[in-house]
Amino acid sequence: MIIDQTALPHRFEMRALEDLASVVEAIRTMRVRGAPLIGATAAHGLALALAADPGDDALARAHDELLATRPTAVNLRWALERIVSIVSAVAPAQRAARARAEAIKICDEDAAHCESIGEHGLKLLQSLAGDKRRTQPDTPLQILTHCNAGWLATVDWGTALAPIYKAHEAGLPVHVWVDETRPRNQGSSLTAFELREMGVPHTVIVDNAGGHLMQRGQVDAVIVGSDRTTATGDVCNKIGTYLKALAAHDNEIPFYVALPLSTVDWELSDGLMEIPIEERDASEVREMTGLAESGAVERIELFSRKSPAANPAFDITPARYVTSLITERGVCEASRAGLAALRGAA
Amino acid sequence: MIIDQTALPHRFEMRALEDLASVVEAIRTMRVRGAPLIGATAAHGLALALAADPGDDALARAHDELLATRPTAVNLRWALERIVSIVSAVAPAQRAARARAEAIKICDEDAAHCESIGEHGLKLLQSLAGDKRRTQPDTPLQILTHCNAGWLATVDWGTALAPIYKAHEAGLPVHVWVDETRPRNQGSSLTAFELREMGVPHTVIVDNAGGHLMQRGQVDAVIVGSDRTTATGDVCNKIGTYLKALAAHDNEIPFYVALPLSTVDWELSDGLMEIPIEERDASEVREMTGLAESGAVERIELFSRKSPAANPAFDITPARYVTSLITERGVCEASRAGLAALRGAA
Repeated sequence: MIIDQTALPHRFEMRALEDLASVVEAIRTMRVRGAPLIGATAAHGLALALAADPGDDALARAHDELLATRPTAVNLRWALERIVSIVSAVAPAQRAARARAEAIKICDEDAAHCESIGEHGLKLLQSLAGDKRRTQPDTPLQILTHCNAGWLATVDWGTALAPIYKAHEAGLPVHVWVDETRPRNQGSSLTAFELREMGVPHTVIVDNAGGHLMQRGQVDAVIVGSDRTTATGDVCNKIGTYLKALAAHDNEIPFYVALPLSTVDWELSDGLMEIPIEERDASEVREMTGLAESGAVERIELFSRKSPAANPAFDITPARYVTSLITERGVCEASRAGLAALRGAA
Repeated sequence: MIIDQTALPHRFEMRALEDLASVVEAIRTMRVRGAPLIGATAAHGLALALAADPGDDALARAHDELLATRPTAVNLRWALERIVSIVSAVAPAQRAARARAEAIKICDEDAAHCESIGEHGLKLLQSLAGDKRRTQPDTPLQILTHCNAGWLATVDWGTALAPIYKAHEAGLPVHVWVDETRPRNQGSSLTAFELREMGVPHTVIVDNAGGHLMQRGQVDAVIVGSDRTTATGDVCNKIGTYLKALAAHDNEIPFYVALPLSTVDWELSDGLMEIPIEERDASEVREMTGLAESGAVERIELFSRKSPAANPAFDITPARYVTSLITERGVCEASRAGLAALRGAA
């Protein structure tokens, strides 16, 4: 069962995925999205495929089909490889059950890792709040986030939002600036929805506004997620993340990236050169969906089809603009040494 | 007669402004927008007010009412003061005619100044194109622009778009990346419309995408307009401009600001501290207007009213991130010395 994220924020709909085809469709059309959730869903997709046909050929085909759904997030490849390596070692008759057990384990681990990210991130936020209390005792800690890296993007808790939920739970006053995150508006549609459900104070802004708020001292920290992180700490995340990192740097505001280590691509050392950036359909830029006055969900066209549009879905934030990475094993510098130390601590 | 810019790009509508009230409404609701056009329209508004009542009290009231329509652009104040100083020196019976003559003169000057900006900017673009030809002979010069600073924002030609129109006219191949410019989408609604009308190749992108394109070498220059420029070269322009300036700086791409000198506020030396930033209604963030499938123009709501939204309309780009200012008197450094030299050359 998934939450169909394309129906949010106007409708909350659950959806059963019962075979490989429905999992492929759900990932490709972004009914499920967010690097950790894509990985977990794809693992279940492989289990469903093996239940239908546990043979080697079917396994290879299902793996390839799932891997091709989204090119940027590395969790997809990581989760698929994890399932393949386990089921390849056993007889076909056992494969579906083993794959399903491993997919469930991936889900459980993801939720636990995200909660750990929340706990490690909370310490950073408590420290920032302590500093702020000395000069502005009556204002909440102001955190800006981009896109959605909350419980909708993971199995539970989220990555970037986990420290915020932990802070809210701990009674630390926080206020979140939610970038709407064009073109698909995962910020205003998903992050604002999540924060509202959890009772966390927040304000939606257009993606253009964050730099201005930072200049005016209205942002204490930025926290975002990551779709793929190089072994050197370069961060590939939703398009526009890089611009916020530049503004945070220019205004000496900490810029944190929260991620499970499954999001690290240990084979890569240069995000700009080595990570393929998904180019999505121009209709995502040209069209918008929302509630019409009639109460129906309607799609409108914003500008003429005679003007072409381009739609790169991710960008790269070089490690030099990332203050720290927040992972399930702790906080580290965005560098080869920082990540290697955490990896070694396994 | 104005072009009603709130109807674009779906309908092209002209509108007659026949009294002070209609001018005030047109500026406040952004039927006319763009710093130079606001100034020119306000000048005519004062002339219309004086035609109805040329007395000192009515003059003061009309001045104050027009000045209060938009707080950020300085051309509004500049144009109103220019009319007031002329009509104050003559008898009430002559005021309406003198004001109308001066308003027409402001319009004519604005068109001439914008054309000069185009000619000065063209030289910069020709120089960039010459450099590019050596390494990439078959690709057009790629220019990114934010918001709308074309002929719709001025009396004619535009500011940021004037050099692009001059280049297109001169046969220099250009391609324009058009930031959609949330929340009001002046890029996809107005700039794309203008470029289409003029036959200039262009592609609409979300505001988040520009940094990524710069990182990938797909932008040769950024040109934007300005709503108010300090005597030291800080630039107040549409929200999000600052983020593009940071990205241009990080990627060593020239960042030009095109403006008539009437946009300079010679009394200011610190944009961040001294320029009031207009906070517009949250509905501009929450709602979008476009063509429904029925062919009607519809308004949709993007996210729940339970989530608040904030809507600052402008931001400040510090002079250190501005490569050059392009004015009607030539190109100068974004600094007190650069601007003073041009002013002195009058």
